[in-house]
Amino acid sequence: MSELTVREATFALLRDFRLTTVFGNPGSTELPMFRDFPPDFRYVLGLQESVVVAMADGFAQARRDAALVNLHSAIGVGHALGSIFTAFRNQSPLVITAGQQARSILPFEPFLYSEQAPQLPKPYVKWSVEPARAADVPAAIARAYYVAMQAPRGPTFVSIPVDDWDRPSEPLAARRVSSAVAGDPTLLAEAAAALSRARQPIIVAGASVARDGAWDEIIALAERHQAAVWASPMSSRNSFPEDHKLFAGFLVADRARIVQQLAGGDLILVLGAPVFTYHVEGEGPHIPAGAQLLQLTDDPAAAARCPVGISIVTNLKLGIAALLQQSVGAHSVKGASRAAPSIPPRATRTPGGKLTDAYLLQQIAALRPANSIVVEEAPSSRGAMHDRLPIIDRDGFFTCASGGLGHGLPAAVGVALASPTRKVIALIGDGSAMYAIQGLWSAARLGVAVAFIIVNNSSYRALEEFGRHFSISKLPGVQLPDLDFCALAKGHDVHSLSVDRCEDLDAALQQVFCSQVPMLLEVHVEKQGELR
Amino acid sequence: MSELTVREATFALLRDFRLTTVFGNPGSTELPMFRDFPPDFRYVLGLQESVVVAMADGFAQARRDAALVNLHSAIGVGHALGSIFTAFRNQSPLVITAGQQARSILPFEPFLYSEQAPQLPKPYVKWSVEPARAADVPAAIARAYYVAMQAPRGPTFVSIPVDDWDRPSEPLAARRVSSAVAGDPTLLAEAAAALSRARQPIIVAGASVARDGAWDEIIALAERHQAAVWASPMSSRNSFPEDHKLFAGFLVADRARIVQQLAGGDLILVLGAPVFTYHVEGEGPHIPAGAQLLQLTDDPAAAARCPVGISIVTNLKLGIAALLQQSVGAHSVKGASRAAPSIPPRATRTPGGKLTDAYLLQQIAALRPANSIVVEEAPSSRGAMHDRLPIIDRDGFFTCASGGLGHGLPAAVGVALASPTRKVIALIGDGSAMYAIQGLWSAARLGVAVAFIIVNNSSYRALEEFGRHFSISKLPGVQLPDLDFCALAKGHDVHSLSVDRCEDLDAALQQVFCSQVPMLLEVHVEKQGELR
Repeated sequence: MSELTVREATFALLRDFRLTTVFGNPGSTELPMFRDFPPDFRYVLGLQESVVVAMADGFAQARRDAALVNLHSAIGVGHALGSIFTAFRNQSPLVITAGQQARSILPFEPFLYSEQAPQLPKPYVKWSVEPARAADVPAAIARAYYVAMQAPRGPTFVSIPVDDWDRPSEPLAARRVSSAVAGDPTLLAEAAAALSRARQPIIVAGASVARDGAWDEIIALAERHQAAVWASPMSSRNSFPEDHKLFAGFLVADRARIVQQLAGGDLILVLGAPVFTYHVEGEGPHIPAGAQLLQLTDDPAAAARCPVGISIVTNLKLGIAALLQQSVGAHSVKGASRAAPSIPPRATRTPGGKLTDAYLLQQIAALRPANSIVVEEAPSSRGAMHDRLPIIDRDGFFTCASGGLGHGLPAAVGVALASPTRKVIALIGDGSAMYAIQGLWSAARLGVAVAFIIVNNSSYRALEEFGRHFSISKLPGVQLPDLDFCALAKGHDVHSLSVDRCEDLDAALQQVFCSQVPMLLEVHVEKQGELR
Repeated sequence: MSELTVREATFALLRDFRLTTVFGNPGSTELPMFRDFPPDFRYVLGLQESVVVAMADGFAQARRDAALVNLHSAIGVGHALGSIFTAFRNQSPLVITAGQQARSILPFEPFLYSEQAPQLPKPYVKWSVEPARAADVPAAIARAYYVAMQAPRGPTFVSIPVDDWDRPSEPLAARRVSSAVAGDPTLLAEAAAALSRARQPIIVAGASVARDGAWDEIIALAERHQAAVWASPMSSRNSFPEDHKLFAGFLVADRARIVQQLAGGDLILVLGAPVFTYHVEGEGPHIPAGAQLLQLTDDPAAAARCPVGISIVTNLKLGIAALLQQSVGAHSVKGASRAAPSIPPRATRTPGGKLTDAYLLQQIAALRPANSIVVEEAPSSRGAMHDRLPIIDRDGFFTCASGGLGHGLPAAVGVALASPTRKVIALIGDGSAMYAIQGLWSAARLGVAVAFIIVNNSSYRALEEFGRHFSISKLPGVQLPDLDFCALAKGHDVHSLSVDRCEDLDAALQQVFCSQVPMLLEVHVEKQGELR
């Protein structure tokens, strides 16, 4: 029998996978995992599991690699499930382990028992298991890592009984398992030919372009084909520079309006996005009459459910590179006649006077440090952000793909942890911030110099605005008065400022952008039309 | 076709079920539910869904009736799942509804889509459904209510597409569906005979005694049989007055120690508890050698998995009443020879000087208002609480049965909402408080005069102590420095005090106990053996 314990075999494997940061909140059923915690590992504590997983999600996305999460039995997984759902939608590769009670007392449903543990996080994990024997734990974690990293990436789950860690195990070597697939060459050649032929191709850029690191490729492809580039509806990443002359704007999550926005195109090339993410009901066609749709996606399910056109399952970097290699563009023989697309005009400058979110976002754009990253969860300011705060750097934007609240604030902490050379600006609504305010404490403990900017409108304003879609003027549960974000920051050991006048904004922004420690700026914003 | 909408039929039904308080946090997929929100309903907003469900759980338990929860699609259910798990273990009857995207766009997996919605909260709901047609929604909610109220009570779940609320529906009348079952008369007669015959019966009192309102019955039964009464391990409710001369103390969640604690008994009568809730591994018998075990439980699963003795599935009030009616006790012919049981001595008074949790709990006991309710989640102070703060009033104690953190603070708000004539004292550890600190804001908005007492030891101290069980001296992720609970209270619009010296404690306690609004008292405690 081997002299190695399950713990030793597991930590050796985690080291090989570069999973040496453990995001977690420990409980009694996890303690033996952390016996003799190796000095080359670090433990990042979150004060609630939804915060833990969102931090890990930001970390995984920003470093473009898996992250390790350790949760406490059923209760920890339960608290985390909103963030696991978001990580699943974000295609974030998280290897999640959770403690379970000791095998010998499971028949008695002990305290902290997780009943049907592998079932609990479904359907928002790609794979889950509670190994039948202690000795199988390292191999289960290895498989969880490989599965999490395969496209489409996402969370996986291993439930581990507390008594397993000290049991014997065999050493397990890390393997190389591919995590990208190339598209079907025949279909890619057809797509390239269609693109070369197109009179007016339009590109829709989705989050997987950014996830797969295809920033240079998509720029080259758009430029070669003089194609307008739209951001896909509700995209959680920036996949094209928003100050580029071919950047056309943001598709809205509404069927009929998308058709309007894409009008004129005869080839709609959707790169790394579903077709399409809708938020409201709609009827009629999904794309303009007479247009053809081509989808390149890393998600087989998104390919299968796409209602029109040709879908090619491929890594986006590989897929776009293939289109670049094979297609003939605007500056070549066939494309010479292709005119530059007409791009909707940009928003004009907002004068000061009223401290609206539009003014705030404009000033952030003006004053932000070079190469900074925006992590956003301020739903009612999304439109203003699109207009005023162009994201111009690669990997410069993160938001959640699920539409939930509670991701942005802690995700910013994880992004900052993975991006020590870039300033992270967390742009968070008041309602959003309150979902995961405990993330401030982790930022303070880690010393990550995130600029938390709280867009405080004292309400779930996006919801009030959405009420109009349903012709509902009065809604219960949407007012958020009497929250004091500077006091909340102090409670979590984070410095803060509060601003409610335009004339104080720039100095405050400069201060939080220069800070070497996390800092919170609460901005009391007023509606465009409302009195201060 | 009926003129009634699904919304109208549902609200009429909810009114009949007395489910007129909606605990929730709304999102776009729920908005049409709240069109023309009736004035006899109230909406209780929580700032994160784990807080929403824990408030509803406290409310349901304290009013001994179902509570209604409305969550936002997959993300809201995900965030809530830790608290749903706890509510399941608490046997708390929650009717949980969640929004879903519009039926017509489900094939496109829209924004906020909940994939396999009825699957998500499993296995911690008793029943879940997404009705196949809008018109079936009211009947689904009715069934969810009846199932939630059947023993063992627990959460149920209905997923409702956003476009259903304005569709036509038939009116649906509320029905009467029994929620209690009486035990098998033959087995109850055998149990009563065994009890009459016993030389030294010992009662183990579990949470279902309190849940079923059998306070008077269990006191009468214990007195008739001169039976020592132990609280079952980790019981989430108080089921026997802790100042009663027959109250023996608290069973620990450890197999061998339970056998020691129950030594001498020849009949172990377990009322409304599992046999037994263990927290650590153990070997050997579950009860003392030669003893017989009788279990009365409202949970068929707990009866089926009980490792020894006779199990009778019954409502506890009915079951104990049957034992009272049929058994012959200590003051009758056969019982006359039965001696009073030997009860372990109580803890002696702690002198002042060091502000330990023991001293704090002793002073709370001395100064608390009459008939107050303690809602506790301060795991490392549980032992001190047992020693120093006897719970003497019926329905005077609530903690969570799941072992998770994040329940107590918001549950106290729900208990207070249901108990306007009793003072609610929330006794919460610092780590526990941070799991659900947002509950303070709901307390302020509702104006419930909860006394939040934060036992601040700057760590997950219970975990540090549990580390000793595994012989681990150094653990990552257990220190909680630099939290300022007075600032956190201010951030949530709650008044506060902080105390770190014995001599200031009594005045502070008196102030929070007298307050007509929610108030937080942060108490910096030191270990029994540590220097201040």
